[in-house]
Amino acid sequence: MSKIIFTNILGSFVFDEKLKLVKKGKKENLLKKYKAGKATKEQTKKLLKHFKNKKYFSDFYKKNLLITKKRLKKSVKNDLLIIQTISSIEEQNRVINILAKRLREWYELYNPEFSKQVTDHENFVNKIIKKNKKELLREIKLDEEKTMGADLPKEDLDIIVDLAREVDRLYKLKERQTRYLERLMKKTCPNVNEVSGSLIGAKLISLAGSLEKLSELPSSTIQLLGAEKALFRHLRTGAKVPKHGILFQHPLISKTKKRMHGKVARALADKISIATKVDYFKGKFIGNKLKRELEERFK
Amino acid sequence: MSKIIFTNILGSFVFDEKLKLVKKGKKENLLKKYKAGKATKEQTKKLLKHFKNKKYFSDFYKKNLLITKKRLKKSVKNDLLIIQTISSIEEQNRVINILAKRLREWYELYNPEFSKQVTDHENFVNKIIKKNKKELLREIKLDEEKTMGADLPKEDLDIIVDLAREVDRLYKLKERQTRYLERLMKKTCPNVNEVSGSLIGAKLISLAGSLEKLSELPSSTIQLLGAEKALFRHLRTGAKVPKHGILFQHPLISKTKKRMHGKVARALADKISIATKVDYFKGKFIGNKLKRELEERFK
Repeated sequence: MSKIIFTNILGSFVFDEKLKLVKKGKKENLLKKYKAGKATKEQTKKLLKHFKNKKYFSDFYKKNLLITKKRLKKSVKNDLLIIQTISSIEEQNRVINILAKRLREWYELYNPEFSKQVTDHENFVNKIIKKNKKELLREIKLDEEKTMGADLPKEDLDIIVDLAREVDRLYKLKERQTRYLERLMKKTCPNVNEVSGSLIGAKLISLAGSLEKLSELPSSTIQLLGAEKALFRHLRTGAKVPKHGILFQHPLISKTKKRMHGKVARALADKISIATKVDYFKGKFIGNKLKRELEERFK
Repeated sequence: MSKIIFTNILGSFVFDEKLKLVKKGKKENLLKKYKAGKATKEQTKKLLKHFKNKKYFSDFYKKNLLITKKRLKKSVKNDLLIIQTISSIEEQNRVINILAKRLREWYELYNPEFSKQVTDHENFVNKIIKKNKKELLREIKLDEEKTMGADLPKEDLDIIVDLAREVDRLYKLKERQTRYLERLMKKTCPNVNEVSGSLIGAKLISLAGSLEKLSELPSSTIQLLGAEKALFRHLRTGAKVPKHGILFQHPLISKTKKRMHGKVARALADKISIATKVDYFKGKFIGNKLKRELEERFK
């Protein structure tokens, strides 16, 4: 004659073998007192009827509201973190650019040819940390005799490489922040994340001010978030209406022909708008469906 | 019967005990061939007469010119390094400011009271790396219960401290670059360095374009380097004449009364102008004398 224990958001309940309620309480306490096992599928079906009783309804309502509020609060906190992280990533870009430009100018006193040849900052930084002048010149197939760069004493070169290492560390920091942002977005707004990607999604939240505010925006506003300058220029001077704000960075737009940009941006903004609302109200994950619809339409 | 070896810019010379020239050549080669010792003071005096012979004059002239040219070239190279270093230091300041502001905004979600209390960026960064929230709140004598900051999960806090560590490293990099600049200035233009300090001296070289160009400027121009905006505003609109450019940062000016600023700036620019010329032409060290004169006048 084993008893059955059943748990839902109202708490834990122990039933006897005839499925009559014996006791309600905290799970741990009940398990201490009764030797109770899990319900079979059959039993569960019958048990659930028990909770159709009206006396539980207001409890369910209150409890559900509480959980939703808690989740809302947590997501509000998370969207503040999202805004800080995306702003930080943007500032890393700015800072890296400032320092990498200085690094190149400085390094070009020593080895101008290599700097001119390798235009990508990250690659450039990476190389000059790891290899010496001879190896670098060999890499760009330049005779060592022919370089116009000055030979620098060790101390003067060391301080340049010191700066290069710092820039390299900043790249790595940005990388860590980007991965962190992805995790944060997946947790906080999985649907937006799926449809727009984490960087664009975070930027939209940042531009709107919060996930809540973003969820209240019509999709036509989302389409133009980040294009405020161009929009007001249009209103003031009658210049062309902008077709997209930061959505332009989305691969669906940047990869299609220019005449399609407006159309894709509108559709994308529509889907993001839906995703935001679902995320804000803690709905199900439909991001993959929204994304598939978009991709099929603009294949 | 030991031989004597004597070296000057023309090369090395071996004399016999009667101070007659035996052989001229490279020091190493001569030492291998002859067992020769250093000359005594007496002998040296006599030896030197040997070089009064006119046949050496043009050699001396050529050799001296060569050395001077080499030194000039080296100092020209060094002033390029100076310009890069001072620019880099200024950019570090800019970059640190950008990142420290972001760090504070982010960290204030977690512990706003501490950030508000500790206004110095470097101190702030240093503290939040080393201590936890409890310790920091105790430091500003705030009850842990009273903080308005949210409790953040470890992952969310870690990424903030990660940024703080980076800012800390940038402070240290700036420190290393500042010390390097001091060494560079002492080597390249010891007089300017002594009179103006290494940061202001480097900035003047950077504004002029090179040590050579700086040495060609009249002291009235040096006085106003870095105040070009104010100067042209004066010429255009008749606004007040600026009294100083970046010389304002010099302790002699920033520490005296405002009505004295013009006078001090003029005197300081005079001395710097002299120091620059002496440094460019590789003269003696008179920086301490110039500095003393200034200090005595404006004590």
